[in-house]
Amino acid sequence: MTFASPADFRAALADLRAPDETAIAAARARQAELTKPAGSLGRLEDIALFLAGWQGNARPRIERARTAIFAGNHGVTVHGVSAFPASVTVQMVGNFQAGGAAINALSGAAGLELQVAALDLDTPTADFTIAPAMTEAECLAALNAGSAAVAEDLDLLTVGEMGIGNSTAAAALCLRAFGGSAREWIGPGTGVDAEGIARKTEVVERAIAFHADAPADAFETLRRVGGREIAAIAGAVLRARQLGVPVVLDGFISSAAIAPLARDNAGITAHCIAGHVSAEPGHARLLARLGLDPLLALGMRLGEGSGAAVAVNVIRSALATHNQMATFAEAQVAAKL
Amino acid sequence: MTFASPADFRAALADLRAPDETAIAAARARQAELTKPAGSLGRLEDIALFLAGWQGNARPRIERARTAIFAGNHGVTVHGVSAFPASVTVQMVGNFQAGGAAINALSGAAGLELQVAALDLDTPTADFTIAPAMTEAECLAALNAGSAAVAEDLDLLTVGEMGIGNSTAAAALCLRAFGGSAREWIGPGTGVDAEGIARKTEVVERAIAFHADAPADAFETLRRVGGREIAAIAGAVLRARQLGVPVVLDGFISSAAIAPLARDNAGITAHCIAGHVSAEPGHARLLARLGLDPLLALGMRLGEGSGAAVAVNVIRSALATHNQMATFAEAQVAAKL
Repeated sequence: MTFASPADFRAALADLRAPDETAIAAARARQAELTKPAGSLGRLEDIALFLAGWQGNARPRIERARTAIFAGNHGVTVHGVSAFPASVTVQMVGNFQAGGAAINALSGAAGLELQVAALDLDTPTADFTIAPAMTEAECLAALNAGSAAVAEDLDLLTVGEMGIGNSTAAAALCLRAFGGSAREWIGPGTGVDAEGIARKTEVVERAIAFHADAPADAFETLRRVGGREIAAIAGAVLRARQLGVPVVLDGFISSAAIAPLARDNAGITAHCIAGHVSAEPGHARLLARLGLDPLLALGMRLGEGSGAAVAVNVIRSALATHNQMATFAEAQVAAKL
Repeated sequence: MTFASPADFRAALADLRAPDETAIAAARARQAELTKPAGSLGRLEDIALFLAGWQGNARPRIERARTAIFAGNHGVTVHGVSAFPASVTVQMVGNFQAGGAAINALSGAAGLELQVAALDLDTPTADFTIAPAMTEAECLAALNAGSAAVAEDLDLLTVGEMGIGNSTAAAALCLRAFGGSAREWIGPGTGVDAEGIARKTEVVERAIAFHADAPADAFETLRRVGGREIAAIAGAVLRARQLGVPVVLDGFISSAAIAPLARDNAGITAHCIAGHVSAEPGHARLLARLGLDPLLALGMRLGEGSGAAVAVNVIRSALATHNQMATFAEAQVAAKL
């Protein structure tokens, strides 16, 4: 158990590891010698420096990378906030295990090992409009389930989720962490219509009002309006930071899982890449609040870690150039006039 | 020789093949059955349909894909339009052949075979401010060098270029094809400063004035203000269309190679994906004129086909989902409420 108590989780969030500046400087010096105009690989160069810093290696590698998917069920689905029945959560977990989901195909294409954690699917969280979604013990267990998915020898971790109803929880997390109006953080999710959006908005407003007097820190926000798969992502991201494992976030839900942590310590996103910006309207706003510039914008809105998995291919391309290109001297190419 | 004469090239451009609508419809029907909310894979779904149409296959594949890089030298470099000496063109071709360039690393990462065609590097094109860059025979030879790079059994072609000075030629092509002011199409290229940009602008203005009374069709524009590598890209893209091979364009130069063709027949871009939008300021404007929405925006500005190669990974991800995912029935997952 990585986080023994809420206090332990808070302490971990308050004391975040820094990247290896020596490795970054060495990686930057190498880039200046490679056979290309300075800066001409754009974000591919930034990515290589980012990975150098978190791996502590001027020639960073992705040999072992994992996508960790967490699944959870949500009591708030009683209010009709999703276009799909809650039974789809467990059915899709079966699909992940059988290899038939988008994330199976995308993990394969990106060279990612896939780990699926189904978190107490038979016990949905409480309806958070009338109670905290989880007890302290349940929330801690979910954080630790996330932490357990992070192996020390991973070169990269991507996170994903499955949970019918969780875009409503995500909106509540964003609203509690960053303020604004409920409507700003609500979108169609997997595809509700205008009426569904109105229902989601009303549900989130009621939830925020119900929990208004509770503490606003990360643990309490995750516990009160989050969900098991969401807390697991938060735990995985924090554990990855402790271990120096860089993380690729996926869409609105996985980014929202970090929102309460970022409210308490904005530095939590420093070891994270936003794999993509999804079609869910609140995601772009959320990434801006998190200080993250998404790598891809492909209009995806599936979750499961799908956008993050596609982004891993771009990250691999970045490392291919960084590690494999010749220097001006090696290639006998003249540098700038 | 695919294009026996300028008239033959014009005839090919006037008579463009259409995609296979039956294959597209079958691919679309398959997507509706896959275990995901409708449309939730965004552009990945569009890409699969696009490839289905051009490959004539509801389950399109990328087994054999090639990046074709064309290199040429430019007489216009006498005016100091580049940050690098013209000798770098041949040096970089050596680097491609030795495996040390960015495109070598990126082709490897994307599973692309790499073919490099160095086009008469010892004979730069004429200074197009005082003469056509190429004779008719030279321009035809370059178009056919491009055509020759397109094998019939390719599942996908990406195009790239190397040619010190060619962002000046590209700006002239855009201006002649689409109008506007020279300054709108000029940028720093590999990295000239404000003075260099002023020189490039003045050179392009003089070139356009010099050729103002010449025919404005694609062949004459390529011949007068293009270059060998640029005409080769135009020939490759047109030949790919004849063979039903989908194309991924790279940055400003490879897109500009198509601008004169698009002026004559806007349909030429239908079998093309814009792999990325580069940092060169004119590229976004050019893609809008070509009706192309770039897949990636990574701030790259290297050429060589580098951005297109990164985009191929996204295209492979699209096909992985399209071909490997289970249907709702296969996975026993409930469809929408």
